[in-house]
Amino acid sequence: MEIDVRNRFAFLGGSSGNWLVTSMQSVRGEQLAAISHIDVRKADAPMATSSAWRIDGLISNLRYATRTELTALRSKQESLGRSHARIASMIPIKKSAAWWDLAQDERRAIFEDTSKHTAIGMRYLPAIARQLYHSRDLGEKFDFVTWFEYGRTDQQAFDDLVGLLRATREWEFVEREVDIRLELQP
Amino acid sequence: MEIDVRNRFAFLGGSSGNWLVTSMQSVRGEQLAAISHIDVRKADAPMATSSAWRIDGLISNLRYATRTELTALRSKQESLGRSHARIASMIPIKKSAAWWDLAQDERRAIFEDTSKHTAIGMRYLPAIARQLYHSRDLGEKFDFVTWFEYGRTDQQAFDDLVGLLRATREWEFVEREVDIRLELQP
Repeated sequence: MEIDVRNRFAFLGGSSGNWLVTSMQSVRGEQLAAISHIDVRKADAPMATSSAWRIDGLISNLRYATRTELTALRSKQESLGRSHARIASMIPIKKSAAWWDLAQDERRAIFEDTSKHTAIGMRYLPAIARQLYHSRDLGEKFDFVTWFEYGRTDQQAFDDLVGLLRATREWEFVEREVDIRLELQP
Repeated sequence: MEIDVRNRFAFLGGSSGNWLVTSMQSVRGEQLAAISHIDVRKADAPMATSSAWRIDGLISNLRYATRTELTALRSKQESLGRSHARIASMIPIKKSAAWWDLAQDERRAIFEDTSKHTAIGMRYLPAIARQLYHSRDLGEKFDFVTWFEYGRTDQQAFDDLVGLLRATREWEFVEREVDIRLELQP
């Protein structure tokens, strides 16, 4: 009866973990409880008792990228875990019911044709690596967690990236967003 | 730390349950263990000890339907649980890695432009009600479970519907499919 959860991860906010929290800002909606560290684990790993909150997410197929975009992304993007990329941002997001009531063609039109979500992210590759985790179908309070990793010299580039995304039409559908900045513990 | 799973269901195959199995056929790939009954429960309900297998699935947003298709579907389709619809079919399906490697525009082109998946289903509405459950992201052995409900006089129509779908280009990506026919217990 056990379900295989190799693609499923838990983000644990608490008083211990690999990642040290350097700032935590509510961009829109309710803030998360303050924590000093985040740990990222396989979702079936035993949980630390020091956790204040937990958000699960899973890696799935991309929902909007065309073949052209996917090929371009794969040729430029790098994975998480690069040795120089000791800065991370964890950005959990919840979109509105109005977003989820849209049909696929309407979501795609807003996501890319209008908001250039993939195109904007592409400009910052390979410097800013990202991984999207899907949380909505798991019944979480957020729909997605996006995890970004980059070097210390790319912090301004990262601020530019999220600034561009937050100015898009797509972001009008974001009703909760928390921006957590992190540093890998030595 | 508990996750809300209101949208998540468990299909339990075993020796008891609301639905009596009248036939069980492997259309492609490995058969499921033979069972006499199926029960459909909320995924967090306590499990019966009489179960031989369990497949979890969740109701999510549609991945391919355009606004035009969604509006047409919603105007014609009826829900599960109609009093006259005492016949059901449970069809778990697994698609190939090649399918999941496709980009969104490629999957959409095969699903609808070539295979007319939504258009075929529409022809049999409202007689044959259907609900799609997503299982792949839960790490299940199947990617989807589709549950159909209809009246005794619509059995031939249902055979026609699945016959049309199995002849499509989309079905070339199906590597496992089991077709379980059921009757609601009096």
